Amino acid sequence: MLVNGKKYRTIWINKQNKEVVCVINQNMLPFRFEIAEIKSSQGMFDAIKNMTVRGAPLIGAAGAYGVYLSLIEAKRKYKRPDDVDKYVLEMCELINSARPTAVNLKWAVTKTLEKVLKQKTVSAKINSALNTASRICNDDVRACRKIGTYGREIIRKLSAKKQNGLVNILTHCNAGWLAVIDYGTALAPVYLAKEAGIKVHVWVEETRPRNQGARLTAWELEQNGIDYSLITDNAGGYVMQKGMVDMVIVGSDRTTLTGDVCNKIGTYKTALAAFDNRIPFYAAVPLSSFDLNMKDGVKEIPVEERSPDEIKFAEYYEGGKIHKGLITFESVKIRNFGFDITPSKYVTGIITESGIIKPNQKSIRNLFK
Amino acid sequence: MLVNGKKYRTIWINKQNKEVVCVINQNMLPFRFEIAEIKSSQGMFDAIKNMTVRGAPLIGAAGAYGVYLSLIEAKRKYKRPDDVDKYVLEMCELINSARPTAVNLKWAVTKTLEKVLKQKTVSAKINSALNTASRICNDDVRACRKIGTYGREIIRKLSAKKQNGLVNILTHCNAGWLAVIDYGTALAPVYLAKEAGIKVHVWVEETRPRNQGARLTAWELEQNGIDYSLITDNAGGYVMQKGMVDMVIVGSDRTTLTGDVCNKIGTYKTALAAFDNRIPFYAAVPLSSFDLNMKDGVKEIPVEERSPDEIKFAEYYEGGKIHKGLITFESVKIRNFGFDITPSKYVTGIITESGIIKPNQKSIRNLFK
Repeated sequence: MLVNGKKYRTIWINKQNKEVVCVINQNMLPFRFEIAEIKSSQGMFDAIKNMTVRGAPLIGAAGAYGVYLSLIEAKRKYKRPDDVDKYVLEMCELINSARPTAVNLKWAVTKTLEKVLKQKTVSAKINSALNTASRICNDDVRACRKIGTYGREIIRKLSAKKQNGLVNILTHCNAGWLAVIDYGTALAPVYLAKEAGIKVHVWVEETRPRNQGARLTAWELEQNGIDYSLITDNAGGYVMQKGMVDMVIVGSDRTTLTGDVCNKIGTYKTALAAFDNRIPFYAAVPLSSFDLNMKDGVKEIPVEERSPDEIKFAEYYEGGKIHKGLITFESVKIRNFGFDITPSKYVTGIITESGIIKPNQKSIRNLFK
Repeated sequence: MLVNGKKYRTIWINKQNKEVVCVINQNMLPFRFEIAEIKSSQGMFDAIKNMTVRGAPLIGAAGAYGVYLSLIEAKRKYKRPDDVDKYVLEMCELINSARPTAVNLKWAVTKTLEKVLKQKTVSAKINSALNTASRICNDDVRACRKIGTYGREIIRKLSAKKQNGLVNILTHCNAGWLAVIDYGTALAPVYLAKEAGIKVHVWVEETRPRNQGARLTAWELEQNGIDYSLITDNAGGYVMQKGMVDMVIVGSDRTTLTGDVCNKIGTYKTALAAFDNRIPFYAAVPLSSFDLNMKDGVKEIPVEERSPDEIKFAEYYEGGKIHKGLITFESVKIRNFGFDITPSKYVTGIITESGIIKPNQKSIRNLFK
């Protein structure tokens, strides 16, 4: 998508030097657009760990490129393919440990590693890693574009109902192109609707405590010429009450076999408000985010409790740097829950790269046949 | 209530000098506990306008004390009672203009002024103003204590159901003693439950964008030895899903004849989550906050749209001062809605100083008979 009028993906190989992987430094967004050049597998580990890259599909791709970088290092250090493999295995383990909870990371690293181990020469291994990483990215882009195409048709119908009028879409957190390689999951339908000339406006909930709505979603919509308004999470219910929302689309970190949607904390309250106002609520979920082993989201999905500092301090920008400011008293007692679960009864439909389905076992099983 | 182990009200007359009104400077909370001394009616206007004092009942009392201070000024300047009255009338108009939307301010100033105008001598006028202001405060304390007594019985029953176990209460915004003179509205039942030896724990929603939950509610609970946990507004639904909440109590800025509750933005989403999890949801509402002229809260209650800066910047504390830090990008487009309406069907009961009632026309009309 566009940044300052120029097309970008969130991760790519440097054209001048194929041994350098470029990513957008998401820690500096929206304050500064910075490209980080990653030149070693250790550097990729750091970038994933410190959240220079974030979003499950994106860190998967980053992990795959990390395998590629580790091979380039191994080529310089070792002559025997066995020694190369040993080094790469070690670095894969390191990279996997950067964000142990993200399923996509381990999946992408393992997939790349398997391909690498099958090759005999070091240069074949390098080529294989690069091709696999690149394929992971392209597959993700294709899946997101498909989600976008299916989702766009919902928006088109809503617009038609209003005599081709403006469609107001509310979203929570960031499930835009910054979380993936391009287009996004929840935001892909919005971008493709705009492309197709459908009038859209997005209500962006700021998404406390890390403010991904305010910092990432608002920014990427602004950069891509989509009309939007940033609001507090609290105001999401009010704009629905007042008839200013036509549909809700969110992403999902994990969706059960029964269609319960686990997503960033606050999604559940937003879904309840949509339900109360008879506004359709959609989750945009790539097939890779389904967990077919779980049936009861509220009971079974483990929800991480994060650092109280995310609530106690605000990140602000001044003099070219990001600082942390104390926004309540030092000794305050805090609990910081990261996710919640929207039971399937509040989900109108799930938008996947294989079509839009109802949130129930039968439809979800069919999806994987 | 207690601050650093010492009992305070939010407003009082200085014991050493009866011509000085003392208030807690709420702008500095929770970072610093500062008492502001107000020595003139202009000073009281400023204190109300810049929110040194806030909370509808408290600014009412502050307005009444402002009338008293204007009389002391008039006594120094003029000899004839007519000139005194003229000056006081002018100052009353000024004070009323400090927060034109707050019903309580105009009501308290008018009430005090009427008493003053009936007196013939200047010293009788001064005494009358002081007595009226003091009575407004005492009446408010009495009403809050009654709300507390009625509300405590709900908590007592919930505790009994759990074999005298811990009762988890969730609240939004600040409807504690800092918003009134003492005890609070929504928090009065909590304080009185604690006094009666009932085990309570309060989930405090931070209440974006102005963070009254994080800055005021958490602080006053901490100061008064009540067990609490600060959470994001987004997490309110999650703690209910997980069975960690027994009841919700909030305040209200305006409640209609039909029992629709207008309160700080986000209350509506919280009420929906309570309803979905079969958790009783109560509003603590003094009789003065009912608006018997309105029947449909969502359609009729005007909701103020506030400055985008409340969302764009975070107030943080450093080096003894409060600063504002930019937390998203400069050109971000924001809408900042201040209140929402919880329809009466989601309200279990309304706790007033005359008892707990059902949120419907019949019960509310009875209340005012």
